[in-house]
Amino acid sequence: MRNSRRSEVDPFIVMDVMQAAARAEAAGRHIIHMEVGQPGTGVPEPATRALSAAMAEGPLGYTVALGLPALRARIAKMYAEWYNVDLDPSRVVITSGSSAGFLLAFTALFDSGDRVGIGAPGYPSYRQILGALGMVPVDLPTAAENRFQPVPADFANMDLRGLMVASPANPTGTMLDRSAMSALIDACHGTGASFISDEIYHGIEYEKKAVTALEITDECYVINSFSKYFSMTGWRVGWMVVPDDQVRVVERIAQNMFICAPHASQVAALAAMECGDTLEANMDVYRINRALMLEGLPQAGFDRIAPPDGGFYVYADVSAITHDSRALAAEILEKAGVAVTPGLDFDPLRGHTTLRFSYARSSDDIREGLVRLAAFMNAR
Amino acid sequence: MRNSRRSEVDPFIVMDVMQAAARAEAAGRHIIHMEVGQPGTGVPEPATRALSAAMAEGPLGYTVALGLPALRARIAKMYAEWYNVDLDPSRVVITSGSSAGFLLAFTALFDSGDRVGIGAPGYPSYRQILGALGMVPVDLPTAAENRFQPVPADFANMDLRGLMVASPANPTGTMLDRSAMSALIDACHGTGASFISDEIYHGIEYEKKAVTALEITDECYVINSFSKYFSMTGWRVGWMVVPDDQVRVVERIAQNMFICAPHASQVAALAAMECGDTLEANMDVYRINRALMLEGLPQAGFDRIAPPDGGFYVYADVSAITHDSRALAAEILEKAGVAVTPGLDFDPLRGHTTLRFSYARSSDDIREGLVRLAAFMNAR
Repeated sequence: MRNSRRSEVDPFIVMDVMQAAARAEAAGRHIIHMEVGQPGTGVPEPATRALSAAMAEGPLGYTVALGLPALRARIAKMYAEWYNVDLDPSRVVITSGSSAGFLLAFTALFDSGDRVGIGAPGYPSYRQILGALGMVPVDLPTAAENRFQPVPADFANMDLRGLMVASPANPTGTMLDRSAMSALIDACHGTGASFISDEIYHGIEYEKKAVTALEITDECYVINSFSKYFSMTGWRVGWMVVPDDQVRVVERIAQNMFICAPHASQVAALAAMECGDTLEANMDVYRINRALMLEGLPQAGFDRIAPPDGGFYVYADVSAITHDSRALAAEILEKAGVAVTPGLDFDPLRGHTTLRFSYARSSDDIREGLVRLAAFMNAR
Repeated sequence: MRNSRRSEVDPFIVMDVMQAAARAEAAGRHIIHMEVGQPGTGVPEPATRALSAAMAEGPLGYTVALGLPALRARIAKMYAEWYNVDLDPSRVVITSGSSAGFLLAFTALFDSGDRVGIGAPGYPSYRQILGALGMVPVDLPTAAENRFQPVPADFANMDLRGLMVASPANPTGTMLDRSAMSALIDACHGTGASFISDEIYHGIEYEKKAVTALEITDECYVINSFSKYFSMTGWRVGWMVVPDDQVRVVERIAQNMFICAPHASQVAALAAMECGDTLEANMDVYRINRALMLEGLPQAGFDRIAPPDGGFYVYADVSAITHDSRALAAEILEKAGVAVTPGLDFDPLRGHTTLRFSYARSSDDIREGLVRLAAFMNAR
């Protein structure tokens, strides 16, 4: 069967790592997972109870396309609590995870051939989804001195129809402060480019609170999800905040492309938002893990790292060790029994000299992983 | 904010009906819902128990992009049971409902500007999703003598890159028999067009079993869902069967666009597949409702109808009554308290003289609705 050009999606290299790790585990080896981007914890238990109760009450049929009104209202309230931003619930769109947010935002804003800037390194699916929709992802190679975030000079005169940023970023964990984000928003508004802010790692912050684009402007799309801070990856539920005049546009696309986000997941998400204690206990683990990583990685020889502002990754420059991050990751898996992600997934041009280490799992796993990494590097 | 051309999605006219119905209900009126395309029943109860148990067992994190292996295997087994088709589970892709199936299939097969044939009348989202992806939906006006299904002559020399059919169809409920479907498949293969078969209403059949395209060829995409027969609309879980050489292509797109279908919904779906007795009890209701409709609609004056082969809709030609189906639907809602769908959603050109009546709800509702419709038409 003949395939479209837009179907030529790059493979995730980390999938090869995960498959190799699964094979090793099937053969009886014990593997420490520092490759996966999801919490080891599940959704808080009261959320599962709320869902069990809802299932007993009645059929969980379609919700309206924009999502359960109670969930939209609760999210709007969170913006007041977290950021002191007054947000009209009618601007909140419940999505099937941030993945659906990207599809909706890109479809609402961009046409075939439109150029959209994305920072490199960055989340690989930005690039792949844009390409799969017939748009043109434009990699903006970011600089270490800009903490791997784009700055206006990176995309001056590049004829972009949009700019997609993430703060805290994946894989680097760096954040845009208010002035850096304002500069990007101003640059976009000056050229008529749409500004999209991926805020999926908000809530998982260490030194200071992340800035939402909504503190600066209403003229932007904000994409978020219950996957990370709320520990609900497999539930596929998230949200988007859009300008007033975009709600109807997005609603119509969502009605057709998704009908609605999973009803059960919306019920669980609403309950999870009242589970602050459990979620903060998760944060205590991330804080411990981060400290372990910032001490243990340099001791193991991975000393070209920066403390992440948020999220649960450390992005390491391994150019002093290798120029083939894929081979190094394979070697670490084979010899140390630790699965890590080669940087090529995040930065096709420069990722051959970087690795991403995730610390989303238990602290015991992180301790054991660091011991193994140190032994591996020592023997190398 | 400037929107893309592809974001210009037509509104669902039925949404206006639903909102008007909701307003009437909020004002204290009792409305019979013959507009909605979802069962009044929920997922079978053992499925909710299976999910509660799974939630207690561990975090429902991401599944692999193609879905839970046990669910893929169970679906493959169903093809042996239902159709005597031997299907390799590796060809089954779990999706976030048939909606995601459309996005995946169209992305895998078609590029910007590619022309894809769809029967009119038909499910409105085919047209809208194709447009939102930058492709060109080509309406094929079908004929009553072909039971509102396309035939090869309808798209000869139309330069189609693909053809999308549905059997049983929405809104007409007609099915393609083996020879009719074979003729369409042959015509597509002869011109290099991809054949996509929407089989979402399979299992809800009255006189004879629906034919799956897989009985005829492996060179097609088959899209299905747990929404209708398995009564799981709000769960957003379905599946697609693709040729061997398409699995990797679809997998890569799915990894990026969706990551995975909702894990909880996959667990519930697997359990629902063992609930044959409950599902057949739902079928008993549909059979009673269909008989009520086929007797009651003509008695009420809606006599230009055909018995549906499958699904839970009756599509009525109301050209003797009106040339403004939208106004008629509004009048029926206002005066009779029955919500119905104007045909314009399904057939932009000819739907001004048609209505769709759904009989997916309880038999008591159907009886009451028919009484109201008869009284309304009598007084008109």
